[in-house]
Amino acid sequence: MKALQYTRIGSHPEIVEIPKPAPGPGQVLLKVTAAGVCHSDEFVMGLSEEEYTGGGYPLPLTLGHEGAGIVEELGEGVEHLSVGDAVAVYGPWGCGRCQKCAEGKENYCLNAAAEGIKPPGLGAPGSMAEYMLVDDARHLVPLGDLDPVQNVSLTDAGLTPYHAIKTSLPKLGAGSFAVVIGTGGLGHVAIQILRALSGATVIALDVNDEKLALAKEVGAHHTVISDASAAEEIRRLTGGRGANAVFDFVGAEPTIATAVASAATEADVTIVGIGGGTAHVGFGSIAYDAALRVPYWGTRAELIEVLELARSGQVSVEVQRYSLDDGPKAYEALAAGTVRGRAVIVP
Amino acid sequence: MKALQYTRIGSHPEIVEIPKPAPGPGQVLLKVTAAGVCHSDEFVMGLSEEEYTGGGYPLPLTLGHEGAGIVEELGEGVEHLSVGDAVAVYGPWGCGRCQKCAEGKENYCLNAAAEGIKPPGLGAPGSMAEYMLVDDARHLVPLGDLDPVQNVSLTDAGLTPYHAIKTSLPKLGAGSFAVVIGTGGLGHVAIQILRALSGATVIALDVNDEKLALAKEVGAHHTVISDASAAEEIRRLTGGRGANAVFDFVGAEPTIATAVASAATEADVTIVGIGGGTAHVGFGSIAYDAALRVPYWGTRAELIEVLELARSGQVSVEVQRYSLDDGPKAYEALAAGTVRGRAVIVP
Amino acid sequence: MKALQYTRIGSHPEIVEIPKPAPGPGQVLLKVTAAGVCHSDEFVMGLSEEEYTGGGYPLPLTLGHEGAGIVEELGEGVEHLSVGDAVAVYGPWGCGRCQKCAEGKENYCLNAAAEGIKPPGLGAPGSMAEYMLVDDARHLVPLGDLDPVQNVSLTDAGLTPYHAIKTSLPKLGAGSFAVVIGTGGLGHVAIQILRALSGATVIALDVNDEKLALAKEVGAHHTVISDASAAEEIRRLTGGRGANAVFDFVGAEPTIATAVASAATEADVTIVGIGGGTAHVGFGSIAYDAALRVPYWGTRAELIEVLELARSGQVSVEVQRYSLDDGPKAYEALAAGTVRGRAVIVP
Amino acid sequence: MKALQYTRIGSHPEIVEIPKPAPGPGQVLLKVTAAGVCHSDEFVMGLSEEEYTGGGYPLPLTLGHEGAGIVEELGEGVEHLSVGDAVAVYGPWGCGRCQKCAEGKENYCLNAAAEGIKPPGLGAPGSMAEYMLVDDARHLVPLGDLDPVQNVSLTDAGLTPYHAIKTSLPKLGAGSFAVVIGTGGLGHVAIQILRALSGATVIALDVNDEKLALAKEVGAHHTVISDASAAEEIRRLTGGRGANAVFDFVGAEPTIATAVASAATEADVTIVGIGGGTAHVGFGSIAYDAALRVPYWGTRAELIEVLELARSGQVSVEVQRYSLDDGPKAYEALAAGTVRGRAVIVP
Repeated sequence: MKALQYTRIGSHPEIVEIPKPAPGPGQVLLKVTAAGVCHSDEFVMGLSEEEYTGGGYPLPLTLGHEGAGIVEELGEGVEHLSVGDAVAVYGPWGCGRCQKCAEGKENYCLNAAAEGIKPPGLGAPGSMAEYMLVDDARHLVPLGDLDPVQNVSLTDAGLTPYHAIKTSLPKLGAGSFAVVIGTGGLGHVAIQILRALSGATVIALDVNDEKLALAKEVGAHHTVISDASAAEEIRRLTGGRGANAVFDFVGAEPTIATAVASAATEADVTIVGIGGGTAHVGFGSIAYDAALRVPYWGTRAELIEVLELARSGQVSVEVQRYSLDDGPKAYEALAAGTVRGRAVIVP
Repeated sequence: MKALQYTRIGSHPEIVEIPKPAPGPGQVLLKVTAAGVCHSDEFVMGLSEEEYTGGGYPLPLTLGHEGAGIVEELGEGVEHLSVGDAVAVYGPWGCGRCQKCAEGKENYCLNAAAEGIKPPGLGAPGSMAEYMLVDDARHLVPLGDLDPVQNVSLTDAGLTPYHAIKTSLPKLGAGSFAVVIGTGGLGHVAIQILRALSGATVIALDVNDEKLALAKEVGAHHTVISDASAAEEIRRLTGGRGANAVFDFVGAEPTIATAVASAATEADVTIVGIGGGTAHVGFGSIAYDAALRVPYWGTRAELIEVLELARSGQVSVEVQRYSLDDGPKAYEALAAGTVRGRAVIVP
Repeated sequence: MKALQYTRIGSHPEIVEIPKPAPGPGQVLLKVTAAGVCHSDEFVMGLSEEEYTGGGYPLPLTLGHEGAGIVEELGEGVEHLSVGDAVAVYGPWGCGRCQKCAEGKENYCLNAAAEGIKPPGLGAPGSMAEYMLVDDARHLVPLGDLDPVQNVSLTDAGLTPYHAIKTSLPKLGAGSFAVVIGTGGLGHVAIQILRALSGATVIALDVNDEKLALAKEVGAHHTVISDASAAEEIRRLTGGRGANAVFDFVGAEPTIATAVASAATEADVTIVGIGGGTAHVGFGSIAYDAALRVPYWGTRAELIEVLELARSGQVSVEVQRYSLDDGPKAYEALAAGTVRGRAVIVP
Repeated sequence: MKALQYTRIGSHPEIVEIPKPAPGPGQVLLKVTAAGVCHSDEFVMGLSEEEYTGGGYPLPLTLGHEGAGIVEELGEGVEHLSVGDAVAVYGPWGCGRCQKCAEGKENYCLNAAAEGIKPPGLGAPGSMAEYMLVDDARHLVPLGDLDPVQNVSLTDAGLTPYHAIKTSLPKLGAGSFAVVIGTGGLGHVAIQILRALSGATVIALDVNDEKLALAKEVGAHHTVISDASAAEEIRRLTGGRGANAVFDFVGAEPTIATAVASAATEADVTIVGIGGGTAHVGFGSIAYDAALRVPYWGTRAELIEVLELARSGQVSVEVQRYSLDDGPKAYEALAAGTVRGRAVIVP
């Protein structure tokens, strides 16, 4: 079968021919219907040889941690799933046994590192191939009649902001303000989630008006150019108090500085983007009792909830389609910053 | 000055002439701009002599626990308030010293009963008069340029559902369902609060289509006639699971039964209306871990938040105006069930 | 192998000889080391034929929903578990796929009823046998070097109060009061959990001084005879305010009445025991915003936590041992009310 | 009357003679019974002239933000308080009108800065004098028969850790670990609060064994020397997972680094001490979803709760007494690091 792989440190991803896998006991083989393209892939492919190997990443690596498919074949012992079922893949696989996994938080599995458990596309073979092997049936969530191409990105670009936002909802009641920095793949979904689930006035930041146009379209109340004066503008819009929750989907040094400077007393400051920045906070340099966090992806229950939001029309991803053969071009567009919303590969 | 008073057990409220009060130290005198009419007044006026006296209610009683006004005169030591300021009155007065009051929950004051502290209109002289005495400046919340007639009812018909709903917001995320039973004064505001602050699909119940028309107008997704089959219909609309939060603004025996029967596992069942009903719940007769509560009014901070919702246009009260002289007619209309939304007396 | 079964409606449980089961894919066979005896078994055996069949219970029924054992044989595809491992059985089995299961709350599985999934001992064959079949490896929690006889009851008599108490911990801070009604199997563990995890002053209620002696031993600050004047005594002990959380492990009509009458404003009232009683609550008959709940068992993550409490010595079950052959005698003792703490069958 | 004042930038505090104040309407004059000595005073007296003036501090400044006293005289309109009552002073005064104050969080008052409202001893005249003027009766909490010298420090050295810990209690259940860095005035109370209200295993850090002896005495399970290897030792004690809550009562660069490095996934990292350090956190440099916060003091309701802990014997401050005349010596001892627990001045 065809697959889009990262084959050598420093190279560009390429289409290769590999054997079609077969499911073992408890496993499921999917015929892939959609695979999302993400900045995290760029991040991994940008690692040095030392970082890449040290991080436990294999070569070659079939890309794609956002995946949807049709059940092609069931491993022994898999129940309540049938060949032909449409499913989405929950990506942050865990051991299933530890306390965090027992709480449904496989994204925070206590044993994953020690046992070498890696998400598909970020260690295990991913969704950018004609077929994809899922390690355990529990990692599949029914898609029903949701369009896979339109919704595959909800498995990360929806789930990750959803997880971040859900934590902050108690702070986003009447009269509150939420800031979204970076209105691309994750950010433009975040704005919709905030509008659907909270009473917050949403302030969106990005580097130019073109990007902010999408933010406006999907529901941002205010848009602000993301530069050194953005925090001041947010203070102005919030009557001097700052925002009750700030979500930074960029995570670069200057956006993190804006995020921290924009936070109200008792706010949440959540750094989601892995842009390499660092927050510098102490007494006097962040509002009192503002909680700074760096979360990671989300839980399977949250994925079920995000799909509910899509089903009810409360969230919709802006998608640009690429064939599997054109997969490398999708990564080029991502690197060039010309993807509007999310790029999705359709094998 | 003129005042609308309840003067004898079993009588109808009537317009009387009483002296204009003067503010003592820390107190504030308001020139009343609006006073809301509430089922609670009916409840109090429906008490027997024994219940009325036992409840500590005085005779005569100037009615009106929803009040707004213009500051007419300041008692000694009152700061940060000026003659001419437009304010709303926070009604559930407390001692200000106990632990609940220290938490900002004067509605749950630990000393109010022992010290004989009563809300205006429900013991202390209320807002249905030309002037109203407020016991402490802290019980006033700035109205700013909000129209007093349009918004006075937010002090109870807004605050009470807001308090009830705020507790349940964590249960009203993606894919959730909320039920509002009774879509009158409080219920039609509750629907708007739910739409503004949660992702819930809102199911509204009332006894006829005319009342349900208002529910639809203010944002209910589904309307259901409130009868013996309503719980079954709610089960159907929620895919068999029941609602994640049910708010009963009637509180009669049959509506409470519907509320309990409609609750999903881990739901909230909140009885707000004082219609004299009782819930009968035990193992097998209510969903697991559904929390049944009977709250009372709300906090001052919550009143500030409700007014924010009005300011941003997220909540708007349906109002029918009456002059002070026509106050008795407002109570007649309330008893007849012909008030659409909330009746407000404008002195 | 030998098993203790309920074989005919209305009969007493008896020792029978049945075939030793074999594990299918994903399943695990345990050699049972301990099996706890519970009032729920009595409840089920007390059902009429109609109730029993209507509830989906099979005949014969191998009893025992508290179980511990040594892994005897692994079904295909089971990983990270070895023959010889000591484990406890998590009892409230769910589908593993629905939203509640995804959240780790198999006790509230949305599909269990429809799919006929039953806990071991309460539908599926239980632990009161020489060997026990566990449907999925995820339902096993490592015991390590915890003594199985001493700790098997934590899977229900520990987990059930733990789940109930965990919900209420935010209400059990400094200066708070907790009431435990019924100080037997579950109640005497509840007292220890409250002492270990909260700052609450613990008030224990039971019907006689002998039972209350155990309550004192395990940490209750006050003991009160459980009769019609108990609520008044609790009011006295709490300075008139009532308790911040009340846990009724009896669940009979009079204990539930005591529980409701003892609750402070904003308290939790949790009915755990299935003694057939009903709470009757409405405006004026329960403290404001007190939350009345009927929970069921607990989550797997909570079981892991309860076992941690045992490991650190913060919780210890009072145990009375019976051989498998003497199993029927254990149920007789339970019915007679002569078990101190928890009866455990050791095959 | 005599007062201990900071009179010139860079000077040491000194005893001066100033007029006895008189209470205006709503105010209360106390005869001081105890005044606590705190590192925050050192912090303020260590500011440069620019910082001091810029921070709005006056000269001279009567020190003392921990205060207890006997009501000496009541201003007009003060009710429910009598001459002779023993009280503690709630220090973080706010406007009483804004949303945070309405929530009972005067420590986070939205108007304090703009209106120049300052705590006693940190702007307003403090407790280190024979008499102290309290701006509003609501800032007094009854001491009852609690010894003022023994308990005055609970108004800051108790309230501040209590506020920090209360936020983290949901993370400090069964099997959890809490780290306390700095076991002096605040830290040794923090350990007791953690023991009283949580199930956490408490790990205490300080710079030498002498200081750690007090930590052991007041209930720490483990003690660790606070140096560059401390985080590693905490990892070891927590089975590799890190602590579920870390409280840094020093707040210097290296202790903050230890705090961040010791945090488990989803932990709380709370920087309480104002030692001038900064946390540097980003993706990969702090555990996922660990919340980093810099809180400030606490609420009046929390002060009531802390005093409850003292009343029940769950918390007790280690105190060293100084006369008012010896006040300067107390500050010398504090600077020298030779105070065991908390220094208290007794006028």
